[in-house]
Amino acid sequence: MTDSIKLLGISNAIVDVLAHVDEDFLAKIGAPRGSMTLIDEARAHEIYGLMGPATEMSGGSVANTVAGFANLGGAAAYIGRVRDDQLGEIFGHDMRSLGVDVRLQPASDGSPTARCHVLIDPTGQRTMQTYLGACTELGVADITLETVGQPAVILLEGYVWDIAEGPALAAAAIKIAKENGSKVALSLSDSFCVERHRDAFEETVRGGVDIVVADEDEVAALLQTHSHEETMDALAGYDNLFAMTRSEKGSVVVHGQDTVIQPATPVESIVDTTGAGDAYTAGFLYGWTDGKSLQECAELGTFCATRVIQQIGGRIEPGLMEDYLATR
Amino acid sequence: MTDSIKLLGISNAIVDVLAHVDEDFLAKIGAPRGSMTLIDEARAHEIYGLMGPATEMSGGSVANTVAGFANLGGAAAYIGRVRDDQLGEIFGHDMRSLGVDVRLQPASDGSPTARCHVLIDPTGQRTMQTYLGACTELGVADITLETVGQPAVILLEGYVWDIAEGPALAAAAIKIAKENGSKVALSLSDSFCVERHRDAFEETVRGGVDIVVADEDEVAALLQTHSHEETMDALAGYDNLFAMTRSEKGSVVVHGQDTVIQPATPVESIVDTTGAGDAYTAGFLYGWTDGKSLQECAELGTFCATRVIQQIGGRIEPGLMEDYLATR
Repeated sequence: MTDSIKLLGISNAIVDVLAHVDEDFLAKIGAPRGSMTLIDEARAHEIYGLMGPATEMSGGSVANTVAGFANLGGAAAYIGRVRDDQLGEIFGHDMRSLGVDVRLQPASDGSPTARCHVLIDPTGQRTMQTYLGACTELGVADITLETVGQPAVILLEGYVWDIAEGPALAAAAIKIAKENGSKVALSLSDSFCVERHRDAFEETVRGGVDIVVADEDEVAALLQTHSHEETMDALAGYDNLFAMTRSEKGSVVVHGQDTVIQPATPVESIVDTTGAGDAYTAGFLYGWTDGKSLQECAELGTFCATRVIQQIGGRIEPGLMEDYLATR
Repeated sequence: MTDSIKLLGISNAIVDVLAHVDEDFLAKIGAPRGSMTLIDEARAHEIYGLMGPATEMSGGSVANTVAGFANLGGAAAYIGRVRDDQLGEIFGHDMRSLGVDVRLQPASDGSPTARCHVLIDPTGQRTMQTYLGACTELGVADITLETVGQPAVILLEGYVWDIAEGPALAAAAIKIAKENGSKVALSLSDSFCVERHRDAFEETVRGGVDIVVADEDEVAALLQTHSHEETMDALAGYDNLFAMTRSEKGSVVVHGQDTVIQPATPVESIVDTTGAGDAYTAGFLYGWTDGKSLQECAELGTFCATRVIQQIGGRIEPGLMEDYLATR
């Protein structure tokens, strides 16, 4: 039994602080290109002080997916912790303005709302320095029958395992899902995150997850494989549905005997890769909860990802579904 | 005698909250297309609640000009009031990261930092709903020999006359300028603002202003003229340097016997007109403080304005001067 919500995201609620940087900047702060590094509040102030003029917009990987899903017309809900500060207000507004049912009120105490310094280099690739702030105080107590409800799919992200009660709250969410008949999807977040929590992810994927959404590096980190062929072979040992993105090589969907190979859509130039995977997941899960074929799920995911890399920031402009339907 | 600062801006310090809207939205909130309306905090919450997902970035007309001027490589300083809240931190960061000498510390009491809801319609035109907040508490006491210094040019904006001590603090700034040999420039802000304060502006322009920067509607409102020809005739009665923008008709610079007519640069499509005039002023004043001919000042202003209307938001991306020099 499920309620009218199709997708509930549980994740780190983050406001992105986006700025263009040159390659020297990354070297100066010692950040590997394309990485996501967790930083404390003092370091966040330091990085921000070094950055040029920035643009602020709501972000967070699963939150981006939830926003994109709502944007496509899907009924969505969200659980994540923000403070009752201005960035928290921005985060909540951007969700609610898309019709997302925001399940937690902003906290009146604790750390400030999280921010992710997104450093966009001249090739459009983004390097992230994230201060988790209020996110780290999301707890098991926030995951209840009432806040979770009975969505068709609950989407978790690997980054949740970086917070103190993350493993426990993920377990609580999966338990509620099993009791209520909700499916569980897990975004692996990034390959470094997988390295940090590989055993926990392996156990969770084997034990409670129905759908894994991830890029190929993340899947390889989970499966400890070293080539596309090895990864494809290893996937045969899993019952889960894997939707695996491969950047310019497109994506592959594997579910038992079914395999879908979806090419990427060529684009003239990539503006900013922020949110490419999140957008793919939004499209994929929208199709999946709507009963579409795996092929069409992959096509819709690709359409969303192609759109988001041609703009600044990780959230797709409203009106996407109309545009998608116009291409059919 | 002047110090090393070439341009000091004194203005309303505002963070822009930008979102795309359709024409219906403007009708729904009763906002004339292209207008700037001052709203109170309750109305600000109402408008924000109705708006879709937004992007936040530092704004404010003169503040945009100061940021652009610094971006071009000019030594710049700024006086404007923000609170010690997160939006105030964003505003200060974005200024300082361009090397702008921010003269006032964030206030520890009073109204929150100002925000302007910038509603971008499908043609790229912007309609603004502005909550002035902390700006309204900028006072005469903030304008001192120490905070103003001896810049080559002090730039004021018409919007300053909308705040309680605005006329008095503008007079104080002009007095300091006269004593120190600084020139005074005035941006007329918008034609409704000119209507609100026409007599005060006329007196200020006649009595203390060296350079007027404005679009043609604003100049016509000030001069009470009804055609381009009438405006050009009326300008002959002023000693001031007028740099007058005319949208797709380009700009006209008039100073005594000197007239420069500068065509606009055609663009494929306008993304967002926010900050077009501010960017023109940045380029124009950069040229002027650098001793360039009026012709070249107008060309540099046009280059900056052309750039800003092809992006979202009112602030030009860093690296502009290199790009400009590459066109010469």
